[in-house]
Amino acid sequence: MESSSLFFTCTINGSVLASKASKTNAEPVCNRLNGSSKLTYRSLPICASADISHSCAFPNGKAFDWKLGNLSLRSGVECKALNVETKPFFSVGSKFQLEDVIEAQQFNRDTLGAIFDVAKEMEKIEKISTGSNILKGYLMATLFYEPSTRTRLSFESAMKRLGGEVLTTENAREFSSAAKGETLEDTIRTVEGYTDIIVMRHFESGAARRAAATANIPVINAGDGPGQHPTQALLDVYTIQKEIGKLDGIRVGLVGDLAYGRTVRSLAYLLAKYKDVKIYFVSPEVVKMKEDIKDYLTSQGVEWEESGDLMEVASKCDVVYQTRIQRERFGERIDLYEEARGKYIVDQNVLDVMQKHAIIMHPLPRLDEITVEVDADPRAAYFRQAKNGIYIRMALLKLLLLGW
Amino acid sequence: MESSSLFFTCTINGSVLASKASKTNAEPVCNRLNGSSKLTYRSLPICASADISHSCAFPNGKAFDWKLGNLSLRSGVECKALNVETKPFFSVGSKFQLEDVIEAQQFNRDTLGAIFDVAKEMEKIEKISTGSNILKGYLMATLFYEPSTRTRLSFESAMKRLGGEVLTTENAREFSSAAKGETLEDTIRTVEGYTDIIVMRHFESGAARRAAATANIPVINAGDGPGQHPTQALLDVYTIQKEIGKLDGIRVGLVGDLAYGRTVRSLAYLLAKYKDVKIYFVSPEVVKMKEDIKDYLTSQGVEWEESGDLMEVASKCDVVYQTRIQRERFGERIDLYEEARGKYIVDQNVLDVMQKHAIIMHPLPRLDEITVEVDADPRAAYFRQAKNGIYIRMALLKLLLLGW
Amino acid sequence: MESSSLFFTCTINGSVLASKASKTNAEPVCNRLNGSSKLTYRSLPICASADISHSCAFPNGKAFDWKLGNLSLRSGVECKALNVETKPFFSVGSKFQLEDVIEAQQFNRDTLGAIFDVAKEMEKIEKISTGSNILKGYLMATLFYEPSTRTRLSFESAMKRLGGEVLTTENAREFSSAAKGETLEDTIRTVEGYTDIIVMRHFESGAARRAAATANIPVINAGDGPGQHPTQALLDVYTIQKEIGKLDGIRVGLVGDLAYGRTVRSLAYLLAKYKDVKIYFVSPEVVKMKEDIKDYLTSQGVEWEESGDLMEVASKCDVVYQTRIQRERFGERIDLYEEARGKYIVDQNVLDVMQKHAIIMHPLPRLDEITVEVDADPRAAYFRQAKNGIYIRMALLKLLLLGW
Repeated sequence: MESSSLFFTCTINGSVLASKASKTNAEPVCNRLNGSSKLTYRSLPICASADISHSCAFPNGKAFDWKLGNLSLRSGVECKALNVETKPFFSVGSKFQLEDVIEAQQFNRDTLGAIFDVAKEMEKIEKISTGSNILKGYLMATLFYEPSTRTRLSFESAMKRLGGEVLTTENAREFSSAAKGETLEDTIRTVEGYTDIIVMRHFESGAARRAAATANIPVINAGDGPGQHPTQALLDVYTIQKEIGKLDGIRVGLVGDLAYGRTVRSLAYLLAKYKDVKIYFVSPEVVKMKEDIKDYLTSQGVEWEESGDLMEVASKCDVVYQTRIQRERFGERIDLYEEARGKYIVDQNVLDVMQKHAIIMHPLPRLDEITVEVDADPRAAYFRQAKNGIYIRMALLKLLLLGW
Repeated sequence: MESSSLFFTCTINGSVLASKASKTNAEPVCNRLNGSSKLTYRSLPICASADISHSCAFPNGKAFDWKLGNLSLRSGVECKALNVETKPFFSVGSKFQLEDVIEAQQFNRDTLGAIFDVAKEMEKIEKISTGSNILKGYLMATLFYEPSTRTRLSFESAMKRLGGEVLTTENAREFSSAAKGETLEDTIRTVEGYTDIIVMRHFESGAARRAAATANIPVINAGDGPGQHPTQALLDVYTIQKEIGKLDGIRVGLVGDLAYGRTVRSLAYLLAKYKDVKIYFVSPEVVKMKEDIKDYLTSQGVEWEESGDLMEVASKCDVVYQTRIQRERFGERIDLYEEARGKYIVDQNVLDVMQKHAIIMHPLPRLDEITVEVDADPRAAYFRQAKNGIYIRMALLKLLLLGW
Repeated sequence: MESSSLFFTCTINGSVLASKASKTNAEPVCNRLNGSSKLTYRSLPICASADISHSCAFPNGKAFDWKLGNLSLRSGVECKALNVETKPFFSVGSKFQLEDVIEAQQFNRDTLGAIFDVAKEMEKIEKISTGSNILKGYLMATLFYEPSTRTRLSFESAMKRLGGEVLTTENAREFSSAAKGETLEDTIRTVEGYTDIIVMRHFESGAARRAAATANIPVINAGDGPGQHPTQALLDVYTIQKEIGKLDGIRVGLVGDLAYGRTVRSLAYLLAKYKDVKIYFVSPEVVKMKEDIKDYLTSQGVEWEESGDLMEVASKCDVVYQTRIQRERFGERIDLYEEARGKYIVDQNVLDVMQKHAIIMHPLPRLDEITVEVDADPRAAYFRQAKNGIYIRMALLKLLLLGW
């Protein structure tokens, strides 16, 4: 279990309680998320006659006491006591409790594997012509403080493919506009009354974590500024497993903007969870991979190497992960930008040296760092990679709303 | 019956006709709305062979004649004549006909009670995990001429919780943009062809009334400029009834911006319909409650009092209704704004003097006129109040589309 | 068959293959669209064991070979060979294959009639109170690069009336924003992974054709700049047939901005497909109908005439099609604009000379080129015309997603 894991679960008689948004469960749920406590009341009226006692410490130091006991669940099961335990993230019949999706670091090798298994099931469901109804009756709000049409449509497609419904806004900044000035916490407390799960995009690092700490329903981070974009990291690893067939022992070349690209940073982090991985960094000097990730890889025993020779790296790798050099990082030094962006292009020449089973990935959008001629090659995996985002998001929505 | 009531219904043989949007009724409907006539044709082709005659006066003074008679309904019922009667608002087995929701004044004590009963049913429906299907097949358009994400999401959530579908735009100003210049009436005539009910937010007072006079389908006013926001008024009264258990005999303190806040003005108006109500006005001098509402309360025999002592009022009231002082009302006099907004803050000190059963309400968003420390107190009702908006809107959608 | 027709179909043993988005068909589909080839893989896994060979030439000159043969379809039918034939657009039991809707010119008299038959069925479905489920499980993306709320809501209403779901964006320009700079082709390749059909509005002429050439799912052009808006053209012709009862032998007056109005240009083009049609052009000198359409009409044997006398034309026509003079065409010559827009107004005087069975049409929005007094006359068909857009779009969605 990760020391940075966000998840602790409460149990009644050893059974892990329902996930935050589970509508069919009558159990009150107490979840500790980075020190805060959440109480899910969605179905509480059902156990109004119950007499169970429990105490949770609130982050502000206040205590909130409530009572349970002889809790008659709809299912006929009786819970006679509430034993609060700090359980490992991954528990109970190899299943873990997924409460929120906030950052790539919350996942370990086992949880990734478990999520990928669900994603694989989702691939089948997505192809059914009449659609699926497993999330029928559930509402997802896409609360976007800055537009990201690609990400938003991907989440909304995932929800609708499962029969769920969507409330959408790309205008969430309006909540906190100068004239109104609402805090993020107040917005979340209001919106959680309208919906069963919140997918949030925000311009500030850490915003998703604050939202999750406030909300009594699950929150998925769809990108918070320079911070995290965990569903992108998951779909990247899923794509490698699906295309290459394994994660242990793979050789991955990360190319382009390694200093600012959160995608490659998260990917490097997650790859460190697998065995015998080797990572090559190929980037212009000005956007080199930073020391923190290199140090982390070293501490995890992951081999890595910096190289200026894309052709040589491409010939050795299973995955060439190209990224876009972001102009906005260069300020007025357009000359440096132009030099950087033209340095490592994936084109027919790169394809020619790549192995037959290898793939080219890219988080999209691309400019000209991969030439159009590459698209027709079966090894060009980037559009399939985008599609995998649907399956990963379907899996996460299912897990957060229904559990395993 | 209110003299200002907007509702007159037409009857066939004494039966009140279907509501505007009822799809399953084949009867042509003639509704008088503030002097205009509406003819609902949704299912008219079914009675194309009918021979019923009726004449409606149009607002522009023209007459429109049409004939019916021996109207063969799909249900096999025969309507042999059309007797136009002006029926009281609240009729037929204690049920009234709800055509549009335009302003708080259209509701009286009985209709409020009837709507609240439906809202209470909706609380149960909202908790069903598989959702409800009672509005399956119905479409609601949210036609927002200015963004109000909070209100829009609340309506859309209400519709989707009932199985209905939504067409959404926060961009409705585009219809009447300089380049295109369409009138509101033309926009409504177009949009009513796409949908079964229109929820409209507009920047001009009176816009909702104009829309309702034009539309052959129900219109709900979701705020028209400085004018009305009737669903907010309804959810406020519903919250008081639900939290305090009664409306007769309550003591309510209205605090903050009483001059410009349409919320408190509508609330004062609606509270006047109940017995033995006492209202306290607590506000900075510059944003005092205006004379029209005070005169109205006096005329209705409602006791009211102005006070500068929030602590004393809070200790006596069942409800402390706090509002935000709006900076934009003060122009360049920022000094006056700063003085006004800091004057009456609801904090732990106010909580300390409040009665145990009393509650704090706020229409949201709040800035710092209620301190965050108050949130954890069970008497802080403002987020529950926001949630009640869902139930009230579910009830209204059900009543407007399906009737009782 | 039109020489400009966009449609060629591939057949297996003489049967026309499924449309692009058909989820229930296991057949691989090869469609030639203006020289490009598309391969639909949606259900390909089902025929993974097949051994059929076929070769398609790609636009970039590359060849893509794939093999079929003894293709075991889910239905039990066996296809032993793939015979590529260039079939007429309108084939197989009088049914044709509809792949994309890009421009008015792709339709001929027979296909228009066939679409109108489906639209007529849709009028019945739209009136069912519980809605239809024929597109349940299907997702439509409205990808709007410029806002057009009217058109977008019309498409979304059509999809939802059939039980389908919608992903919506009026913000599609964000994909190709300066900071990101994605090509339209890349955007389409990404979005087609999220949805089953794309409805696109773009500011550049030809954008829809490019999108269709890229996409493996159907694309509907909802307007591409000064180019085409084919669903508007279809609903116009459908309205004439429905209101007048025929298309052969009709007299149509096109009034207003004939130079820039794509609506009247497309309508003139489509009317040429019918017999004994006579068209009158009534417009200010500065916005006269251009020579290309006049030449085309002449080449098709369609009688046409220019006239400055609206009253005389109105007295002779079955249809008076009024349009808005667009101010933006006049630059700084506001004087010319004012002169042009006031010249031909449809008012009570025009109504007085019109025949009883004749109708007035307008693509909307209108300013004052039709006076409000006209609205109450049964011959004012423009709001019914807008409503017909729903039926036409329902028909097209059904045909593109399910076929005949």
